[in-house]
Amino acid sequence: MGKIQSCMYVVCLLCSVTLNILFVGRDVYVGGKWEVGWSRRAAEEAEAVAAVSCSGHGRAFLDGLVVDGSPVCECNTCFGGPDCSQFSASCVADVDSGDPLFLEPFWMQHAASSAVLVAGWHRMSYSFNDHSSISQELVKLIRKLHAIVGNANTTGRFIVFGAGSTQLLNAAVHALSPHNSSAPAKVVATIPFYPVYKSQTDFFRSVDFQFAGDTSLWKNSTSDPTSNFIEFVTAPNNPDGKLNKAVLQGPNVKPIYDHAYYWPHFTPIPAPADEDLMIFTISKLTGHAGSRFGWALIKDKDVYETMLDYMSLNTLGVSRDTQLRAFKLLKVVTQGRGREIFKFGYKTMKDRWEKLNKALLMSRRFSVQENSPQYCTFFGKVKRPSPAYAWLKCEKEEDKECYGVLKKAGIIGRNGTLFGANSSYVRLSLIKTQDDFDILLHQINKLVSEEDGGKSSM
Amino acid sequence: MGKIQSCMYVVCLLCSVTLNILFVGRDVYVGGKWEVGWSRRAAEEAEAVAAVSCSGHGRAFLDGLVVDGSPVCECNTCFGGPDCSQFSASCVADVDSGDPLFLEPFWMQHAASSAVLVAGWHRMSYSFNDHSSISQELVKLIRKLHAIVGNANTTGRFIVFGAGSTQLLNAAVHALSPHNSSAPAKVVATIPFYPVYKSQTDFFRSVDFQFAGDTSLWKNSTSDPTSNFIEFVTAPNNPDGKLNKAVLQGPNVKPIYDHAYYWPHFTPIPAPADEDLMIFTISKLTGHAGSRFGWALIKDKDVYETMLDYMSLNTLGVSRDTQLRAFKLLKVVTQGRGREIFKFGYKTMKDRWEKLNKALLMSRRFSVQENSPQYCTFFGKVKRPSPAYAWLKCEKEEDKECYGVLKKAGIIGRNGTLFGANSSYVRLSLIKTQDDFDILLHQINKLVSEEDGGKSSM
Repeated sequence: MGKIQSCMYVVCLLCSVTLNILFVGRDVYVGGKWEVGWSRRAAEEAEAVAAVSCSGHGRAFLDGLVVDGSPVCECNTCFGGPDCSQFSASCVADVDSGDPLFLEPFWMQHAASSAVLVAGWHRMSYSFNDHSSISQELVKLIRKLHAIVGNANTTGRFIVFGAGSTQLLNAAVHALSPHNSSAPAKVVATIPFYPVYKSQTDFFRSVDFQFAGDTSLWKNSTSDPTSNFIEFVTAPNNPDGKLNKAVLQGPNVKPIYDHAYYWPHFTPIPAPADEDLMIFTISKLTGHAGSRFGWALIKDKDVYETMLDYMSLNTLGVSRDTQLRAFKLLKVVTQGRGREIFKFGYKTMKDRWEKLNKALLMSRRFSVQENSPQYCTFFGKVKRPSPAYAWLKCEKEEDKECYGVLKKAGIIGRNGTLFGANSSYVRLSLIKTQDDFDILLHQINKLVSEEDGGKSSM
Repeated sequence: MGKIQSCMYVVCLLCSVTLNILFVGRDVYVGGKWEVGWSRRAAEEAEAVAAVSCSGHGRAFLDGLVVDGSPVCECNTCFGGPDCSQFSASCVADVDSGDPLFLEPFWMQHAASSAVLVAGWHRMSYSFNDHSSISQELVKLIRKLHAIVGNANTTGRFIVFGAGSTQLLNAAVHALSPHNSSAPAKVVATIPFYPVYKSQTDFFRSVDFQFAGDTSLWKNSTSDPTSNFIEFVTAPNNPDGKLNKAVLQGPNVKPIYDHAYYWPHFTPIPAPADEDLMIFTISKLTGHAGSRFGWALIKDKDVYETMLDYMSLNTLGVSRDTQLRAFKLLKVVTQGRGREIFKFGYKTMKDRWEKLNKALLMSRRFSVQENSPQYCTFFGKVKRPSPAYAWLKCEKEEDKECYGVLKKAGIIGRNGTLFGANSSYVRLSLIKTQDDFDILLHQINKLVSEEDGGKSSM
C-alpha cells in the first residue's frame, strides 16, 4: 500500500513536472497568456510548487520556505535532505498526534477536482448574502453528505460551523450550561477520554461550568436536582475506538456527542446518529486538520442560538476562505456517493490494522483493543472497525510505565494517563503518513522479536 | 470615484468575459489541457464566476448560489435583479456594519497578483514544519509590513495569530487576568468604545475577569492593590477615530492596544506604536473581514505563551487556508512598499469625507467629529485623518433620539448608546461599498436640504 501510494505520488509529481516544463516554455506562456487570464499566475505557482520532487516522503507548499527562488520540501518524519530522500538511521516513530495525513495521497490523486482558486476579492464581507456568517450552500452539502453516508440524521437539526470540533466542543458546553444556577454545571466524560475535554473546560475557567472527571463518579448523583451534568460521549471513542453511549441519565444530564471519527474509514456505520447535539469535523473525514472546519447538528433552537452567539463573539464565525475550501472538498467527497474516499480511507486503515495485529500476534508483552465486526450500512456488508488509534497495553507488571517502555524502543505514543487511564496504556496514532506507520511497524516488529518467551515459544 | 471604480470593475469583467469565451472554446480547451495541468479546472471555474456581470453593483462567488448552471450575482444593498442593475426606489442607506468593502475594487484591479490556488492537499496537517500552528513565513511578512508602514515596532515582540482581532481581544484579556486573585480583573474602556469589549467579556462569564465599564469610574481606584485592571485602548478609536491613549495608570493596570484602524487609509501615522500588547487585523487593512485573520504583538513571554495556549484550546490556531490567503494578500500589500493599497484606501476615504463634510456644512441639526491634520510618517506629509466611521451628533434637543431620526430619514446607523455614549450620537460606516456611501450621501443631502433655518439662512 505504502509503495503504491508513493508510486502514484511520484507519478503525479512527474507528470506535473512535465506539464510545468511545457507551459512555462516562453512560447506556450505567451500563447497561454490570453487563454487563461488573471488566474494564470496563481495556477502556475501552484503547479510549480506541486512539481517540486520530495521523493514521495514530503511535499512543498505555496507558503513554505523558499531558497534561491525554489520552494523547499517539507519532509516526513525520519526523512531529510533537499528532496527528502535521506532516511535517518537513528529514527524514532512519532505516532503521538492525530494528524490525519493518511488521506494526503487521496487528494494528490484528485488534484484537478479538489483544487480551488481564491480570487483576491473573494468574500471580503463579514456576512453572506443572507446576513449570516454561514454558507447555506455548504450547509446543504453537509446535509447531503450525512444522507449519503447514513451516519447522522440531520432532519430537524440546525447547523452551526466552528473552527474544527475544538471550538464547537466549548461552544456546546457553554450553551448547555445553565447561566442562573448556583453551582456550575459538571462537565464529565468516560475514561479513557480525549484530553481536550478536560484541558479546555479547565482553561476557560467559566463561572457556569467545571470539569468533574469520570462519569462513574456521578452515576448515583444525577437525581440531585441542584446539580447539572454535561456528558461528552465520544463515538467512536478517542483513544480506543469504542462506539460509546451516554452513561449518565436524567433530566439534568445533557450529552454532547463527539462524532469526529464516525466515518466509514474507521468504523462500520450501524445506523445514523440521531442525538440532540452532535459534533463533526472534516479533520478525520477529509484529513484537513489544518483547515479547522467542523459543524454541530443541534435540535434545540435556544442551544443553537447560544452557539451562534458564541461563534460571533469568539471569532465572528468561521473564515470564509475555509468555508470555500470545505465546500470544494465536500463536493469531491459526495461525488459518486462517497465511494471513492471512503474506499481509500477504509482500505488504508484496514491494511494498517492487519499489519499491526500480525506484528503483535506473537507478543505476550503488548496487546491492542479487539475490533469486533459489525454490519456497515454504508458499505452494505459486515466490516471490522479500523480505528484511528491503537490503544496499546503493556501487559507485564515490570512494563507498567508503558509510555517509557515504548519510548526506549523508539516509539513516541501518547501516555494513557493523559486519557485518565493508567500508565500501562499508550495511544498510537495510525492515521499519520505511510512513512510514520511503516516506521512504527518496524519498531514494533523489532520490539516483539526481542521478547523472550513470546507466545511463539509456548 | 464611484464611477471610476465601477468603470474599472466593468472593464475587468468584460475582458474576463472575453478571455472566458476564448478559453472555453473546445479547441483551445483541448489545446490548453496539457498546457496548464491539474490546476486548470479551478482556474476556469474562478474566471467563469468572475466573468458573471453584476453591473458593477454586485459580484458572484465560487461558493454562491448556482441557478441553471450559472452563478448568481450577490448584489449590493439597494440593487437587485439577475445582474444587479435594478435600483430599488424605496432604498435605505444601511451604514451600520464595519464591512470594509471599500477595498474590494482594489483587489479586482489586482486580480492576477492576489489570486491564490489552493491544492487539495495543501497543509492538511495540524502543524507547520516547526511543529507550531503559525506560519513563520507569514510572521516575517507581518514584521516587514509594520517596518514599511511604520505603524508598529515589532522588535522584541512575539507574534500570535487569531481569527481576526475578535479572538485575540478575549485571548489577551484571558492572558492578562491574574488566575490566583480573589477578585476578577476589571475590564474597562473609555466611552465611546467598541461594543464587543463589553459583550464579549460578559458573554464568556469567566471567574477571572469582568467588564467594569468606563475608565472614568476608576481613575482614583487604581492604587488599590487588591484590584486589577485591563484597559482597552483603541487607537484610532471605533467609533470616533481619536488616537486614544491609556487613561488608567499604575502597576495593576494592563492595557490592550487595539490598533485595528491604525493604517494610512484612516489616519496619519505619527510614529510606530510601541506598546507591550498590540492587536492588528487584516479586516481594516486589506478589507478581508471575512477571512478572519489578525495578530497580536506581545512583549511579555508569559502573556505570549498563555495567548498561544488560548489559541490551541479554543480553535487549534488559525485555519492554514486563511494563513495562506493572508500571506498572498500581504505580499501584494508590501509590494512597492505599500504605496498602492494605502494610496487607494486613503484616496477613497478622503473623497468620502470631503463629500460628507460638504453635505453637512450647512447643517445646524447634524455634526460629525473634527479631524485635525497631523504629520504622517508613511506619506511623508501632513494629512487630515479620514476615519472609518462618522460619529454623527444630532445637535437639537428634539432630535436626541438620533438613531430614530436618521432611521426615519432612511439611514440605518449604529446607535451611540451601544458605545456607551448618549442617544444623540450615531455611528455611520464610511467603509462599505461605493453604492452604500453614495446612498448615504444622497439621504444626508436630502435631510439637510429639508432643514428649516439651516446655517445657509443665517
